[in-house]
Amino acid sequence: MTDSLNTVTDADFDASLDLKLERVVPVAPELVWKAWTEPEHLVHWFTPAPWKTAACEIDLRPGGKFRTVMQSPEGELVDSTGCYLVVEPGRQIVFTDALGPAFRPNATSFMTAVITIEPHGDGTRYVAVARHKSPEDRQSHLDMGFADGWGSALDQLVAYVNTW
Amino acid sequence: MTDSLNTVTDADFDASLDLKLERVVPVAPELVWKAWTEPEHLVHWFTPAPWKTAACEIDLRPGGKFRTVMQSPEGELVDSTGCYLVVEPGRQIVFTDALGPAFRPNATSFMTAVITIEPHGDGTRYVAVARHKSPEDRQSHLDMGFADGWGSALDQLVAYVNTW
Repeated sequence: MTDSLNTVTDADFDASLDLKLERVVPVAPELVWKAWTEPEHLVHWFTPAPWKTAACEIDLRPGGKFRTVMQSPEGELVDSTGCYLVVEPGRQIVFTDALGPAFRPNATSFMTAVITIEPHGDGTRYVAVARHKSPEDRQSHLDMGFADGWGSALDQLVAYVNTW
Repeated sequence: MTDSLNTVTDADFDASLDLKLERVVPVAPELVWKAWTEPEHLVHWFTPAPWKTAACEIDLRPGGKFRTVMQSPEGELVDSTGCYLVVEPGRQIVFTDALGPAFRPNATSFMTAVITIEPHGDGTRYVAVARHKSPEDRQSHLDMGFADGWGSALDQLVAYVNTW
């Protein structure tokens, strides 16, 4: 399906700046989409344990707010408000922390995330790309545990959706 | 027409952070659109004289590059590469310098611009909003001559289009 996406494709991947998680998961694309786009579902899987998602706001349109509050076991809160850039129902979400609601620039930025899903047998081919402004930010994201973290969150998504 | 815009509307205006230029100009909306979206036209009007536009690159789609190089009479160059966020043909362009091509975060950011046009008699109602991250950035933009600068550029657009 990728060829008909009119927004962000693999051609934009820059190995010196970007990180990618690519997996096939045994969950239908429409359920992955639902888990990503409805706050009451997202809070169940978005943050790798033992942290959790304390709050989530979603205004699912380009320029709409995407806010998450992650909470450590000790109660530390990480509050991030960004916005959506691309919303292609059932196929792709792009969001960033470089811009807030209504595309207003934020004071600081770390990444733009591109989540692309497509049917794969009975499941979903899931590709998550994190795009950074510099090799240093990419390395910092690697050091924070990008692969394990985003992989664990995806495992949590699958486990949660399987309870439906 | 504003009510059917699915993207950025007046409801997003924040007087403490944003600046607005609103005018009716005696040029049809399709010509304003053409002047804004084709590099060979944009270079003729985008930068208030005596500065000029030394170069322009346009990839007119969300996430596509929007680069301008402004040049002072003394030859100083101001090179800015951002990207488009919204492209609604004939009606609205939103772009930012907080993100580069493919929505990659930029190292620094100053503003997001929202250009909205609609038919008004034989001409165009033209609304340009500059959105900033802080009151300080808004004030800095005012001090740089926002109103005169964006107004002069619009005058240049009208004068240029009238030579077609």
